[in-house]
Amino acid sequence: MKSLNDLQTPALILAPEALEANLASMSRALPGERLRPHVKAHKCTALAKRQQAAGHRLFCCATIREMEGMAAAGLGQDLLLANEVLDARRLGVLDARVTVAVDSEETITAAARGGVGEVLIDVNVGLPRCGCPPEGAGKLADSARRQGLGVRGVMGYEGHIMGVADRTKREEACEASMQILLRAHEQVGGELVSAGGTGTWDCNRWASEIQAGSYALMDTAYKELEFPFQQAFWVLATVISLGDGFAVADCGLKALGMDHGNPTIEGARVWFCSDEHITFAPEEPLKLGDRIRVIPAHVDPTVAYHERFHLVEGESVIDDWSVDLRGW
Amino acid sequence: MKSLNDLQTPALILAPEALEANLASMSRALPGERLRPHVKAHKCTALAKRQQAAGHRLFCCATIREMEGMAAAGLGQDLLLANEVLDARRLGVLDARVTVAVDSEETITAAARGGVGEVLIDVNVGLPRCGCPPEGAGKLADSARRQGLGVRGVMGYEGHIMGVADRTKREEACEASMQILLRAHEQVGGELVSAGGTGTWDCNRWASEIQAGSYALMDTAYKELEFPFQQAFWVLATVISLGDGFAVADCGLKALGMDHGNPTIEGARVWFCSDEHITFAPEEPLKLGDRIRVIPAHVDPTVAYHERFHLVEGESVIDDWSVDLRGW
Repeated sequence: MKSLNDLQTPALILAPEALEANLASMSRALPGERLRPHVKAHKCTALAKRQQAAGHRLFCCATIREMEGMAAAGLGQDLLLANEVLDARRLGVLDARVTVAVDSEETITAAARGGVGEVLIDVNVGLPRCGCPPEGAGKLADSARRQGLGVRGVMGYEGHIMGVADRTKREEACEASMQILLRAHEQVGGELVSAGGTGTWDCNRWASEIQAGSYALMDTAYKELEFPFQQAFWVLATVISLGDGFAVADCGLKALGMDHGNPTIEGARVWFCSDEHITFAPEEPLKLGDRIRVIPAHVDPTVAYHERFHLVEGESVIDDWSVDLRGW
Repeated sequence: MKSLNDLQTPALILAPEALEANLASMSRALPGERLRPHVKAHKCTALAKRQQAAGHRLFCCATIREMEGMAAAGLGQDLLLANEVLDARRLGVLDARVTVAVDSEETITAAARGGVGEVLIDVNVGLPRCGCPPEGAGKLADSARRQGLGVRGVMGYEGHIMGVADRTKREEACEASMQILLRAHEQVGGELVSAGGTGTWDCNRWASEIQAGSYALMDTAYKELEFPFQQAFWVLATVISLGDGFAVADCGLKALGMDHGNPTIEGARVWFCSDEHITFAPEEPLKLGDRIRVIPAHVDPTVAYHERFHLVEGESVIDDWSVDLRGW
C-alpha cells in the first residue's frame, strides 16, 4: 500500500473519517431532499456518490461541465445548474433531469432553445450577483411557462451573509433574505424554494432545500462559525529548503485558492506564497523532507487546481478520487 | 473557422501577434542563450516552441511535471529545474540534459541518487525562499563534485525586487543581489550565473542568463513597470446577468489567479469575484451575452486553471494550444 511519504507533493489529501462524519452530521440535520449538495466545492463524482449514499439524490452544480460529469457518473436523477447560461445546448442533450436557473428573458429563451425542460426563477435576495428583482419573478415565470418550460419554483442565494460571525445576526439577515424569496415564490409557484449554503445550513428554515457544498470538506473561513463539521482536507507539502528563521515547502499559488488570503500551517506563521513555494516560520525546527499540512483559506478554488484527492488513513493512502468535474 | 462567440467561457485567450512581438522584443535584447525562458508562466510546450523559434534553446522549469513535459515535447536540450527537490528519480530518467538547483547537502544527495547529472548551486540573494547562504555555496559545490555531479555554476533569484517601481532603485537593488551571487560564483565555479526575471530583464547585467517567463504573456502587475511587452492574454467571459448598476460575467475565482487581487475590466470597476462569477460596474451599458475581457492581476496562477489557450485574431479562433504542463 502507498504511504503518505510516497506522494508527489503538493498533494490534495482527504480524510475519509472526517468526511463521513461531516456527511452524517449534515444528513441528520437535513435528510434526503432537504439538502441539495453543491458539487462545486469538491468537483468530484466519487465524493458526490458518498453524499448520495448519505441519502441525497438532488445535486447542484455551478458549471455545465459539472452537470455533464454528474450525468455521466449516473448521478443525474435531479441536477440543478444554479447559474445562468446563455447557451444551454450542452445541457439539453444530457441523460438526466436538468433544471437551470434563469433570471432574464434571455436566459429563459436559452433554456428553451437548448432543450432544457425545467427552470427555477433565480431571485436577487441581497447579494449583487445573479437573480432577478423579486418583483419581476412572477413575470419571468409566466414567460417561461409560455415557452413550454416547467417552472419548479424559485432560487435565491443569501451569499452576502454566509460569513456573518454572530449567529443571531446571521439568522435575522437570513430571514430577511428568505422573506424576499418567499414573496417571489408566491408569484412564481412550483414546489421548490432552493437557497442557502454551508454558512446558513442550520438557520435557514424557510428554504425547502439547502444548497450546501463546503460542509463536506470545510475551510478555515467557515471554521470560525463553530459548525459541527471538521476540516476533512488539506494540502500535503514537503519542506524543501531551510533558511535562517524560516522554512520553505513546495505548495504555492498554483496549489491554493488565495482569494481569502494565505493558508495556515499549524505551529507556524506563514510569511508568503510564491508560484510553487510557501515560506513560513515554524515554532519548532523542521528537517528537510518533513511533510507538513497546509490548510487553504478557501476550499473551492484550491480543489480546482488539483487532479485528484488522496484518501489517507494514518500514514496510508487507501484510495485516489479524481477531481473529475474541473473546467467548463 | 471557429469564432470568439463559439467559445465556452471562461476561456483563456492568447493574442499571437502580441505574443510574437513580446518574444521578438526579448530576443533582440537577450538573444539565444542570454535568455533561459521560464515555462512556469505559460505551462505550454506549444508556446515554448515559439520561444525556441525565437532563438532560445535553454529552458527553465519550476516543477518536475514541467520538466517531463518539456522533455517529451523535444525541448530537452538544456532544462533547468530552478527549484529544490528531495526526490529526483523522475528527473534522472528523462531523455534530456537535466540540471537541478540545490541548496543543501540533502538536495545534492537527492540529485545524485536520482540519477541527475548536473546541478546549479542556488544562492539566497535576498528573497527569503530557497537558496543557501552565499558563504556556504563553495562548500556545497565541493560536496556535489565529490558525489560525481557536474556543477554548472550558481543561480539566485532576486524576486524581492521584481516589483520595485522606480527603475534606478530597482537597478541598485539588483546589483546588490547580483554582487552576492557573483561572490558565491567565485567559490563555486562553472560557466553559468543564472538569475533574473521579467522584472529585471533589462537591468540585470551581471547574470549570464536571465530566467524570464511573464514577458511572453504579461500581467497587470508588470505592466506598471513600463516594459516594451504587451498584454498578450486575457480571459474571455460572457455577461450572464444584469443588475441595478452592475453586471455579472462567468469568470470567477476558478479561472483567475487572485493572489495579486482582483482582475481588471477595461471601462468598468470590478466589485468582487465569486467561484464562477465576477460582479462589476460597467461605465457603458452592456447586454446579456456580450463578451468581455477580464485581465488577471497575475498570469501564472491564472493559466494553471485552464486546459488550453485559444489563439485569436480579430474575431476568429485560429488555433488551440494545450496548457500541457499543469500539475506536479
